[in-house]
Formats: sequence, structure tokens, C-alpha cells
Amino acid sequence: MVRYKATIAYDGTNFQGFQRQPNGRTVQEEIEKTLTKMNNGQPIQIHGSGRTDAGVHAQGQVIHFDFPQKRPLEKMRFGLDTQTPEDVAVKAVEIVDDTFHARYLVVEKTYQFRVDIGKPRSPFRRHYASYYPYPLDLEKIQRALPDFLGTHDFTSFCATGSSVDDKTRTIHEASMAVNDAGDELIFTFRGDGFLYKMIRIMVGTLLKIGNGRLAPDSIPAIIAQKDRNAAGPTAHPEGLYLVHVAYE
Amino acid sequence: MVRYKATIAYDGTNFQGFQRQPNGRTVQEEIEKTLTKMNNGQPIQIHGSGRTDAGVHAQGQVIHFDFPQKRPLEKMRFGLDTQTPEDVAVKAVEIVDDTFHARYLVVEKTYQFRVDIGKPRSPFRRHYASYYPYPLDLEKIQRALPDFLGTHDFTSFCATGSSVDDKTRTIHEASMAVNDAGDELIFTFRGDGFLYKMIRIMVGTLLKIGNGRLAPDSIPAIIAQKDRNAAGPTAHPEGLYLVHVAYE
Repeated sequence: MVRYKATIAYDGTNFQGFQRQPNGRTVQEEIEKTLTKMNNGQPIQIHGSGRTDAGVHAQGQVIHFDFPQKRPLEKMRFGLDTQTPEDVAVKAVEIVDDTFHARYLVVEKTYQFRVDIGKPRSPFRRHYASYYPYPLDLEKIQRALPDFLGTHDFTSFCATGSSVDDKTRTIHEASMAVNDAGDELIFTFRGDGFLYKMIRIMVGTLLKIGNGRLAPDSIPAIIAQKDRNAAGPTAHPEGLYLVHVAYE
Repeated sequence: MVRYKATIAYDGTNFQGFQRQPNGRTVQEEIEKTLTKMNNGQPIQIHGSGRTDAGVHAQGQVIHFDFPQKRPLEKMRFGLDTQTPEDVAVKAVEIVDDTFHARYLVVEKTYQFRVDIGKPRSPFRRHYASYYPYPLDLEKIQRALPDFLGTHDFTSFCATGSSVDDKTRTIHEASMAVNDAGDELIFTFRGDGFLYKMIRIMVGTLLKIGNGRLAPDSIPAIIAQKDRNAAGPTAHPEGLYLVHVAYE
């Protein structure tokens, strides 16, 4: 068997998330269906760098799979890209060592979160950004962002019900930019890993700060409380993009 | 009755075009449904600056309608915007003279056409740009574009079956830009009016020139032939946007 690593993009709008499940269309299912067809009907299983929820997008999700033959890489990429549905794109394929694992060997992930702050809401962004129609003081958000940096127990920013024991994560980047038109915020978060719904809760909390309903210096106290109820609401999934996954 | 002019945007993906028809969801139908509800069930009819086909988008379509009461403009805009479905946005509303007509008084229209030239096709642009995977010499397209300028009989660039008699139109702008990432072409066409599918045929012809299957200087001869078969294919609707409609 030959191990392949592939970088994929997908529009999450019409998926019930990345991971295969009994009901609902998933990215994993669509790619496995295509690979199985390319393998003359013999099942092929893929492994992703992690799950993404229903409605969440990816520009740089990474997967790996084992395939019986060594194939020309561009032929493999093109075959996978054109045979998967239009809302999945296969950007790059490479052959990797048998020890490579898309999930276990991740060293860093980068996510972006887009917020449509235009008036009215853009019909073209309704599936690609979360809409926030209330007043925002962007200066307050900028002041709060650095408080996420470093190593912390992020229990307060993890959806309840998560089965993960160790909720300590290290964040290397937490930044916000505004697009040229001034009607969209683009948050970037980079770290060694993120808990379930962590970025969406971080963004929900930052928007609450921008809206004046939480103080700009409240992040350290929220982290210290280790209580999900201390943080803000969970921002909508359609604003979230898995942008990059880095390996050793 | 008070006459209102409204500027609207819509994502054409899930519409069978602008104009009301017996079968299929249309922009006109959705807006009239909302206005009729706002008018306590008494029917209101709207008039657009012109039709757009199934899948075609608008960032600045203009409509007018007569409504019994004078209402605060922002209230009217907000009511219409929030009560229409999410793929329609109402950007601006103003009260106009009874003599205003959204279709008859148009002096100029601006359209854009977006072409995804990235590899692979972006899943996020599959409904918002036409995909062109073949080699393109952009220099050749740039050389051909000015030949559309001025007043010409555009019979060769009109879909057959159009009932319009006079096919003479004046084009004031025909230009092409490339986005920052270098993976999208943005054509802009501005003129006193456009024939049925004219812009899509112009773009289809320009892409054929860029691909080397037509000479860069062939536009004047194609115009002179007054024959639809002389021009290139009709580009797909999902790349087309009605951007602006100008009145006296």
C-alpha cells in the first residue's frame, strides 16, 4: 500500500460536517466514495486532521489514505478533484511515509472566522460569513485579542459535553483584519490545537466585547473561571474556515 | 399612491431569474409577496430595470413600485430587507416622482462577469464565477476588448430568438482586471443597454480569443457579419452580475 497525503478545500454549506455519520451527507463519505470507485470498488478509508462541524468550511483540510498503487501525483489529484462533487476541491496530493498520520502528527492549525458587518447583510455571504448587525467598537476587540495568546486551560471556551480531558492549548496567533470594503471582519487563530467549538466561542465572546456588553480586559478572568457560562455565545458555523494544518 | 425606487442585490443561484413566471421561484415574486404582506394583503406589483436569467446575480438591480402610504425610508428599506428571503437584500429605498420608471428611463447599465481561472476550481466560487480551466493569453483579451467600444449593431452577440428589432447598442466600457490572487478575471461592461445574453456571448468570444482559437483582432469582423454563429459560445450564467443601473 502507498500512503497519500491530500490537501482539500470544501464549501461546508451542504455537508453535515467532515466526519462520516449514519445520516446526512459528509465530506469523508464523498471522498471515500470517489476513492473506492478509483480502486475498482474495493473500500478505501480516509483520515482527516480533525472534524469540522456542519456548515464549517475548509480551505486547507489535510487527509491521508492508503491506496494499492503508486500513481502519478497530478493524475491522482486530478482524478480525485474532478470525480468528487463540486463543493469539494483537491488542491494537492503527495506520497508520504507510512508513519505519516493526518490527525496524530498535527503540530499547528490555522482557522479564520469571517463576520459580515455590512448593512444590509450581503446575500452572497449568507453561507460564508456570520452576520453581526449590532454596533461594534473594533478597538475594544483589538485590545482583547492578545489575552488569548500563550498556554491556557481553555475550559471556558469549550462546548459542554466534550470528552477531551486536557483542555490546555497554546495559541500562537489571535488577530483581526477588516476587508478593503470595510464590511467584513476576518479573525485569524493559530495554535497547537483547538477544543470543540472553541473558535466560535472565542469569536462570540470578542463580538460581545466589541458590542460593549463585556469589558475588553475580561478574557483572563473568563479563562481563569474554567466555566463555559463565563464566556460569550457560540458564533454561527458558516463564518468558520479551517485554513491550514501544519506537520513536523 | 407613492412611488418608491429600490436598489436590490440578489444571489441568483436559487432563482429562475428576476421575472415572475408560472413555474419556478423568481426575485420579482419574492419581493411582490413581501410588499403585498406589508400592504395588508392588497397586491403590489414591481417593475425592474430589466430581466436577469436563471443563475445570474445582481449587486445593484433597480426596481420601482407604488405603495399607498408614505413611510419613513429606512423603515421601508429595513422591512423589505428583513422580510424578503436571505438571498435578496434591499440596499436603498427612495421616494421618486410619479414619472420615474425603472425600465424605461435607464440611461446606462454596468455588468461584471467573473471567471475562475484557478486550479483546481474553487468550491466557494462554483455559483459565483464561471470556471475556465484552459490556457489563456490575457494580453490577447486586452487587445480585443476596445473593439467592443462605441456604437454597433450587435446582432452577432445576441442570442437567436430575441424579439428586439433594433440591435444597435453603445458600449462605453469594456475592460478586464485580475484579482490579487491571480485566479479570477473580472470583466466590466458598461453601455446604454445590452441584448439578450450579449455579455455572456462577448465573454465566451473573448475567452476563445485568449485561448488562441480566434484572432485578437477578429471582433470587428464578427460584428460586421451580423450572425450569431460568427461569435464564440455563451459563457455560463453564474459568472454574471448586474452591478449598476444609471438614470438621468
